[in-house]
Amino acid sequence: MVGKSLVQRMHKLGVDTRGSGLTDVSRQVGDWLQQIGAGEGLLNLFIQHTSASLTIQENADPDVLADLLDAMAHLAPESDVYRHNSEGPDDMPAHIKSALTSTSLSVPVTAGEMMLGTWQGIYLWEHRSRPHQRNIVLHFAGTLLETPAE
Amino acid sequence: MVGKSLVQRMHKLGVDTRGSGLTDVSRQVGDWLQQIGAGEGLLNLFIQHTSASLTIQENADPDVLADLLDAMAHLAPESDVYRHNSEGPDDMPAHIKSALTSTSLSVPVTAGEMMLGTWQGIYLWEHRSRPHQRNIVLHFAGTLLETPAE
Amino acid sequence: MVGKSLVQRMHKLGVDTRGSGLTDVSRQVGDWLQQIGAGEGLLNLFIQHTSASLTIQENADPDVLADLLDAMAHLAPESDVYRHNSEGPDDMPAHIKSALTSTSLSVPVTAGEMMLGTWQGIYLWEHRSRPHQRNIVLHFAGTLLETPAE
Repeated sequence: MVGKSLVQRMHKLGVDTRGSGLTDVSRQVGDWLQQIGAGEGLLNLFIQHTSASLTIQENADPDVLADLLDAMAHLAPESDVYRHNSEGPDDMPAHIKSALTSTSLSVPVTAGEMMLGTWQGIYLWEHRSRPHQRNIVLHFAGTLLETPAE
Repeated sequence: MVGKSLVQRMHKLGVDTRGSGLTDVSRQVGDWLQQIGAGEGLLNLFIQHTSASLTIQENADPDVLADLLDAMAHLAPESDVYRHNSEGPDDMPAHIKSALTSTSLSVPVTAGEMMLGTWQGIYLWEHRSRPHQRNIVLHFAGTLLETPAE
Repeated sequence: MVGKSLVQRMHKLGVDTRGSGLTDVSRQVGDWLQQIGAGEGLLNLFIQHTSASLTIQENADPDVLADLLDAMAHLAPESDVYRHNSEGPDDMPAHIKSALTSTSLSVPVTAGEMMLGTWQGIYLWEHRSRPHQRNIVLHFAGTLLETPAE
């Protein structure tokens, strides 16, 4: 990594969710890294919402994701105790679930690939019941595989 | 973003809290970015405490923040089950709440402005009952709007 | 920080855990920063697993760590409600605990030292019952104390 100057690239990734659940965005993120010619560096993901969030979880057994949804619903249940309820009973639980998970994540990159563990996938976690359009800002800072003439 | 070399800037932001609650620090952070002439890049926030934390949440309806406080108090209640109680009944719950939220956050920046979603605010979350002086370290890496002669 | 170009360094830190519990990795991380001659910048930690995670917590009173383990076991108990149970009763709770804590963390660095608060330590949190070999990827981007000829 010595001797190449660092550059940065940014991209807004739109994701259409189907309502409450986890959407694997690893491939789309990996495709973008390839497209910009990322070499080594750090990828940051930032979701521009407060009722959806990011998580890195097991991508092998879909039962893990189903159990995660149930566990989170148990920790932040729909209830009539909330003051903030004008947007529906699923709204305040969605904010709580977002606070308990991640708005931003960083993943190291080498040879243009995210250094994810064997079973790790990057998920957008939709906490609202209905489908939403969500945005994740991707930011890469590092070296490029073939530095364009700058 | 091509052709400008990356630089970094750092700043320690002091925040006086009024005890348990969420303090919106978005404006102070945005002011600092303007002051250093930030262009495009990544802002990182790091809180130097283990009984206060960071979160990005809705800044429109204050009821969301009140409900968040209640939900977190429910997940990490004051109790006599804790071994660590010499600093008061609110201390161990504060550590648990910090573990469940964030010590560091990253936010992309473009044209000197944080790319926050429409309803997103950055909050320092004080988990202790009494007022405290807290420190957040801000780190920006990216380009500057007008690069000074270096 | 003006006038020195930014570089990056990466390292994979292996950690052997003794089963469920928190392992302080602050010293190993600090040693690596010294070894690479880190000056000012940002350190990112990324754990390549979904049943172990990262947290920054109090390093003074070990009772805090014991209480944290209990609190997390209460929030994500072993139970027969999980679909995903083929790897043992501690597996799905480990995934939930990972989702509630952090896969990545960022810490600012100045004069080669992490800007941790007085009582902050960086911990690898093993959520499985049995010992595991875990990997944390360290990424530093910033200036070096003595820039080697590049």
